[in-house]
Amino acid sequence: MKFSIAVMPGDGIGNEVVPEGLKVLKRAIEVSGEPVELDLTDYEVGAKRWHETGETLTDDELESLRSHDAIFFGACGDPSVPSGVLERGVILKMRFGLSHAVNLRPSKLFAGVTSPLADPGEIDFVVVREGTEGSYTGMGGSVRTDTPYEVATEVSINTWYGVERAVRDAFERAQARSKKLTYVHKHNVMVHAGHLWRRVVEKVGAEYPEVTFNYEHTDACTIYMVTDPGRYDVIVTDNLFGDILTDLAAAVTGGIGLAASGNLNVEGTGPSLFEPIHGSAPDIAGQQIADPTASILSGALMASHLGLDVVAKSIETAVEADLADRDGTKRSTAEVGDAIAARLS
Amino acid sequence: MKFSIAVMPGDGIGNEVVPEGLKVLKRAIEVSGEPVELDLTDYEVGAKRWHETGETLTDDELESLRSHDAIFFGACGDPSVPSGVLERGVILKMRFGLSHAVNLRPSKLFAGVTSPLADPGEIDFVVVREGTEGSYTGMGGSVRTDTPYEVATEVSINTWYGVERAVRDAFERAQARSKKLTYVHKHNVMVHAGHLWRRVVEKVGAEYPEVTFNYEHTDACTIYMVTDPGRYDVIVTDNLFGDILTDLAAAVTGGIGLAASGNLNVEGTGPSLFEPIHGSAPDIAGQQIADPTASILSGALMASHLGLDVVAKSIETAVEADLADRDGTKRSTAEVGDAIAARLS
Ligand SMILES: CC(C)[C@H](C(=O)O)[C@@H](O)C(=O)O
Ligand SMILES: CC(C)[C@H](C(=O)O)[C@@H](O)C(=O)O
Repeated sequence: MKFSIAVMPGDGIGNEVVPEGLKVLKRAIEVSGEPVELDLTDYEVGAKRWHETGETLTDDELESLRSHDAIFFGACGDPSVPSGVLERGVILKMRFGLSHAVNLRPSKLFAGVTSPLADPGEIDFVVVREGTEGSYTGMGGSVRTDTPYEVATEVSINTWYGVERAVRDAFERAQARSKKLTYVHKHNVMVHAGHLWRRVVEKVGAEYPEVTFNYEHTDACTIYMVTDPGRYDVIVTDNLFGDILTDLAAAVTGGIGLAASGNLNVEGTGPSLFEPIHGSAPDIAGQQIADPTASILSGALMASHLGLDVVAKSIETAVEADLADRDGTKRSTAEVGDAIAARLS
Repeated sequence: MKFSIAVMPGDGIGNEVVPEGLKVLKRAIEVSGEPVELDLTDYEVGAKRWHETGETLTDDELESLRSHDAIFFGACGDPSVPSGVLERGVILKMRFGLSHAVNLRPSKLFAGVTSPLADPGEIDFVVVREGTEGSYTGMGGSVRTDTPYEVATEVSINTWYGVERAVRDAFERAQARSKKLTYVHKHNVMVHAGHLWRRVVEKVGAEYPEVTFNYEHTDACTIYMVTDPGRYDVIVTDNLFGDILTDLAAAVTGGIGLAASGNLNVEGTGPSLFEPIHGSAPDIAGQQIADPTASILSGALMASHLGLDVVAKSIETAVEADLADRDGTKRSTAEVGDAIAARLS
């Protein structure tokens, strides 16, 4: 079996964590004895390229990305580039262009990991964040820009089609897990989008009689995230709320250094993308101090998505073992990758 | 001095906590010896009225509210009413109609109060949440409603005028406090609104050379809220982000049972409104088990807004003393109000 993977480290610590993610993935494949070959193709995106050429990710590259089985991404964004240029031009261009309907973000408090919560209990849920619409479309604009009379709009676009893709995926996951789904929105204020979400959840939910679902407002959900995170098993929510809630969820489960994600094309019309949920962290970049665990776990998500379940499981097990043994000793980014790879043999 | 106050308990526990807020306020005025008279006018809003008459808050009532010096509000919302009807028809109708430019939400971890964080440190900041625009305008709609081809939009409206009112208020507060301001948005994604916010903050900030300000993405801010909340002194943010962040802030400082807020008309063109940030909590309503502290502290905010600083301070002191002495003994809503009132003499 040969898988073609697009590798895109991007900016900042993306360049340090992606090699570790790949190192562990390759080693896990080797150890598994499965006849799997990875064919890696590098894509250069990010601040350096933008400064040199003005390009983010071209339409041709987006087309060429379609030929791969998956994309392994690092991070994008740099203070030297106007905010939004790389995020919209690279990250969101791929999520939208490649129909990444589901932004999947597991949150688990691993043994040995310290939560900022006094009494976190067991935390193990996944967030199914809609990935292609909501407030992320970029629609809107401004008039009388930079005058006292400026008006700027952002238009949140929500379609039955887009919401249903995410909601259906979430019900499938709930069905396969503990049969409990929480959908989160703010339908008491954002009544147009909120009631569309409600109707979709109720309609799709009727097809999953074994799954019980309940609703929470986004603001209330942030409270439960810190007072009772164990209540969650599968959460489904919109793009913006999902962005916010998954960073919070990562924080309560020990930090974004550990949080992996998959941007899934659930219809099989293009490659899915796997990335840490953290950003490029320019403040700590280039020092080999970033934690590569999120990238390594993103590699496991990618393996599982490619059907390599044994490989995925072995990476997770190695990461869990490493986490359980961490004692505060400082290790470089590469040392963490090496240590986790070493546990695979 | 006579102050005319509109009293609006609303739904659920609003009816239990508002009387305690008033009880403590009246007692604090009495004890202060100041020649202050409160002239209270009741307004009935909420689920009961809507079921009986179909009315939320009429235009006439909105006009009549303008004649008061302040509004003392409880909560609105009930599962028997379609989500959004009371919220948009009462709460948001007042915030928009009465130009409540600033939704002020102090977050303080009082002595004796347990935070869900293992190591909360000192927490004492205020959030200046823009109150009249953003995703809260209700603009948008849906077409092909309840079909697989439905499209629903929410339009976030952001104006230089509206953002500047809130930002200027925040800089004033920062100037009077520790001269540190954090502005929070998501300008790497919501570039139209986000860059308007950025430009306003930079422009207004130039008038406050003593105040240093920094920017955080909303998602990152939720992380710091649980890992390093002590970093904040004054936060300014938009309506939706403010809604989410202040519930989270309330949770880390011991719960929404304690969190007060003021919806401020900063231009003096109408009355400001004071309310707990919690909702009507239908699940615990009518049992006299709701904590009235948030309403009582909202009374202190109202007193301070009316220029009754001694009264405000004495309420805060009484609340702090009560909180420091709480030992888990169950008290009814009224008993908590009585206990705090008793500390005033
Ligand atoms: C970098 C940014 C565009 C992105 C987002 O907002 O989705 C990030 O925060 C994430 O969560 O993946
Ligand atoms: C009840 C609701 C309309 C309101 C809001 O979203 O602003 C509440 O959550 C709040 O924070 O005051």
